[in-house]
Amino acid sequence: MSDANPNAWTTAITQIEPNHVRVRGYDIAELMGNVSFGAMVYLILRGELPDAPTGTLMDAILCSGIDHGATPPSALAARTVASTGANISAAVAAGIMSINQHHGGAMENCAKVLTELLSKVDGGAPLTDAAPAMIDEFKASKRRIAGFGHRIHTADPRTARLLELAKEAGAFGRYCEAAIALEAVFTERGKKLPINVDGAIGAILADLGFEPQVMNGLFMIARCAGMVAHVREEQTRMKPMRKIDPVAHGYDGPATRSMK
Amino acid sequence: MSDANPNAWTTAITQIEPNHVRVRGYDIAELMGNVSFGAMVYLILRGELPDAPTGTLMDAILCSGIDHGATPPSALAARTVASTGANISAAVAAGIMSINQHHGGAMENCAKVLTELLSKVDGGAPLTDAAPAMIDEFKASKRRIAGFGHRIHTADPRTARLLELAKEAGAFGRYCEAAIALEAVFTERGKKLPINVDGAIGAILADLGFEPQVMNGLFMIARCAGMVAHVREEQTRMKPMRKIDPVAHGYDGPATRSMK
Amino acid sequence: MSDANPNAWTTAITQIEPNHVRVRGYDIAELMGNVSFGAMVYLILRGELPDAPTGTLMDAILCSGIDHGATPPSALAARTVASTGANISAAVAAGIMSINQHHGGAMENCAKVLTELLSKVDGGAPLTDAAPAMIDEFKASKRRIAGFGHRIHTADPRTARLLELAKEAGAFGRYCEAAIALEAVFTERGKKLPINVDGAIGAILADLGFEPQVMNGLFMIARCAGMVAHVREEQTRMKPMRKIDPVAHGYDGPATRSMK
Amino acid sequence: MSDANPNAWTTAITQIEPNHVRVRGYDIAELMGNVSFGAMVYLILRGELPDAPTGTLMDAILCSGIDHGATPPSALAARTVASTGANISAAVAAGIMSINQHHGGAMENCAKVLTELLSKVDGGAPLTDAAPAMIDEFKASKRRIAGFGHRIHTADPRTARLLELAKEAGAFGRYCEAAIALEAVFTERGKKLPINVDGAIGAILADLGFEPQVMNGLFMIARCAGMVAHVREEQTRMKPMRKIDPVAHGYDGPATRSMK
Repeated sequence: MSDANPNAWTTAITQIEPNHVRVRGYDIAELMGNVSFGAMVYLILRGELPDAPTGTLMDAILCSGIDHGATPPSALAARTVASTGANISAAVAAGIMSINQHHGGAMENCAKVLTELLSKVDGGAPLTDAAPAMIDEFKASKRRIAGFGHRIHTADPRTARLLELAKEAGAFGRYCEAAIALEAVFTERGKKLPINVDGAIGAILADLGFEPQVMNGLFMIARCAGMVAHVREEQTRMKPMRKIDPVAHGYDGPATRSMK
Repeated sequence: MSDANPNAWTTAITQIEPNHVRVRGYDIAELMGNVSFGAMVYLILRGELPDAPTGTLMDAILCSGIDHGATPPSALAARTVASTGANISAAVAAGIMSINQHHGGAMENCAKVLTELLSKVDGGAPLTDAAPAMIDEFKASKRRIAGFGHRIHTADPRTARLLELAKEAGAFGRYCEAAIALEAVFTERGKKLPINVDGAIGAILADLGFEPQVMNGLFMIARCAGMVAHVREEQTRMKPMRKIDPVAHGYDGPATRSMK
Repeated sequence: MSDANPNAWTTAITQIEPNHVRVRGYDIAELMGNVSFGAMVYLILRGELPDAPTGTLMDAILCSGIDHGATPPSALAARTVASTGANISAAVAAGIMSINQHHGGAMENCAKVLTELLSKVDGGAPLTDAAPAMIDEFKASKRRIAGFGHRIHTADPRTARLLELAKEAGAFGRYCEAAIALEAVFTERGKKLPINVDGAIGAILADLGFEPQVMNGLFMIARCAGMVAHVREEQTRMKPMRKIDPVAHGYDGPATRSMK
Repeated sequence: MSDANPNAWTTAITQIEPNHVRVRGYDIAELMGNVSFGAMVYLILRGELPDAPTGTLMDAILCSGIDHGATPPSALAARTVASTGANISAAVAAGIMSINQHHGGAMENCAKVLTELLSKVDGGAPLTDAAPAMIDEFKASKRRIAGFGHRIHTADPRTARLLELAKEAGAFGRYCEAAIALEAVFTERGKKLPINVDGAIGAILADLGFEPQVMNGLFMIARCAGMVAHVREEQTRMKPMRKIDPVAHGYDGPATRSMK
């Protein structure tokens, strides 16, 4: 790199030298086989390796987001592009672009709401007072608190499991408690607005120290895998240029089974 | 789903029912915390859970592809788009679109060459004859055998590690042997064309039973994580609209360190 | 530009100097107001300015492709991405990516078929023999001749108009004649496979000297405008994350009217 | 369209019926050959046909934005993706995604600043007072007024031509006057911040009644053509996976010439 080049720049992510690839300082060959991909994602985004239970939690978070069938716009956009004869990368890219404010964005938005709530607690208000006050405030200004309630699931199977794993990893902190406090207020008031998977991930990632702006990035990593599956299924099972109905679809894969 | 709807369709990937998300038949909450993301990716793409060493191998494959610094077009495209003020999903999508025939495509192309080579072995030719014959044939028609040699690495640290882990997982089969046989011919002829990381992954994934057409999809999943890191770094450390030099870049992250 | 830089390169499209922008040699300020955008597109893609009727023909070709309502995958993909809260550029990009082999690709594919047909004519076969022979050949190998027939239109209003304007511009040449010859064979055989808009554009652009590989690029330029309209309509009239039905849509815009 | 379908929807852009395509009510075959593409873009985005000089102005606006050589991120992103072997639609899409807040966004941002300025004039302040006051205000809050000054051009050849054509079309209204007033204050204060091409387009489009949010969409339509040219040049003249230097590039196209 020439000092004379005014556009010379540096990156702190990965160092490339002949016969060496080091991610955040660690030789990639040492990491391979010794850490899961969840732990590797934590490393590349945070700069440090997680401990073992946090690595497991990261894998669980990625697993929870891998797919949600043919209902979300990311799967539909990826399939629509694939049906035109586009290759796998263009089709997956169209799906990635669908991950946005209204699709996945609830993680980030929930984390921001919880941050706001916790700033009030830091200011001296007990959580049990601050939580209902915040809900009242949002209601008054007609804003929705992201991360609670789901179009399809009333008791999202992913939420309980994520919070359980967060406890095991010591990552159930103030953000998770704040989310639980909001849920309690909703329940008390007779609203069926349980923490949804986005809310749980937003709270846990915040407790792990992730910045809200990167949360949808984590979702992209997870869902990218689901989209590769959708695109290949579209390319191999479906006719080109079909009308992709966003509602009239069923499941014809393996029957319900268990790991046990 | 109405039978009357001529556009009704089915998917075999994920079943969504109220309070149930089942990936290839398995309840997602049961998978979470019990399988790594590498194993989950195997499940969603292949339809079955891998055994434990294969799951570890899948994580290692994903880890090996997570990033290669600022040199590849995917990182440069993602950063170029990010520098215009695009949000994280658009910038990552531009990087995904760069994963194509010449970027990542060597996995698929190598797997196809190995398939061709093995079809000759199945036809009765010993691998030790078929390998040099194929190299001669490609040379005569001025085609390049994908998956061998690297612009930067003469002994890619990822290749040896991947083949080692493939052996541990019982995934070092005929495709890996065929790749080794080609490498041996190159060496014998004084050509420095060792199996590169793409060649190793192409061979291993083929031995695991993956179709060549999905291999670049696996690379997208892995590299998506690196691109999220690049995009956030661009958004937080760099000025908008900067001239992104594809060569004059250095590394200023953590110093070399080890997990031990 | 330093001679020492091994990556220095040149472009033949547009020259940028302080206070000068020259497209293919012409000062952009001189072009502005003196040529239509159709003529400008011809200039930037072909390197020379068209004569006036060819400029008009180029505008007509772009106008013919500007939109086809909510039926094509490009409009649906763009709207799907827009419905997630993506900004206009990401949503339009998703639509652009849908323009591919099966969507718009018939122009290029038709031009290639016509080239093949004309090579037989150049070899001495009269067009009246070569045309039915080619149709037989395609039928025997179960290939479809692109550019004939339409899912919705039996007499595409755009086809007749385009061929008429091509005649006025002196651009109705051998490719157009070859297309007409194929259509005549279909008609003779009782097949309702008239030249469709893609076939007409493919033939005319070939007669104008465009290479087949750039034809879908022209379609992207035209349709980009339609997609901007769809994305803004989605953003301003529709609820986020709606289920975008690809069939159950109607028209509620201005009533039928005429320029006269 | 079934009334029973809760997802049935309508669009006001284009009506598709067998053998009829009507854009905003006009038969597309009637429009073809009778209006330029610039006029057609106006129609599809605004819902009405422009008069002849406004149509010419629209063509000139699109012509002004068609390309700016290899300097902008859209051309570099499109070429970077093309160099990986991506097809034309993926490469162009990556370029489209680069049109964003910092690339092209000055049109929209300038139009918004002018709207703010004009609201003060409507409140009773003469433009000659409101303009310097607004510049002081922006300076105090360290905000930049978009649409003035250029990295390369001190007297942008496109600006003068656009304002001239706007006058001819009767589209030089209050927004253009407001832009001129701001420029005058800059000049008076010894700042070289002339209206740039984005500022001129932002002002003219605002005077034509376009909403700021669609302005970058118009830029996408124009620049799409330039990107098709860049992508084809990359595909036909350059080696795959080359290092695309964002600065060290020159022009080797036709020499300077004139329409006269």
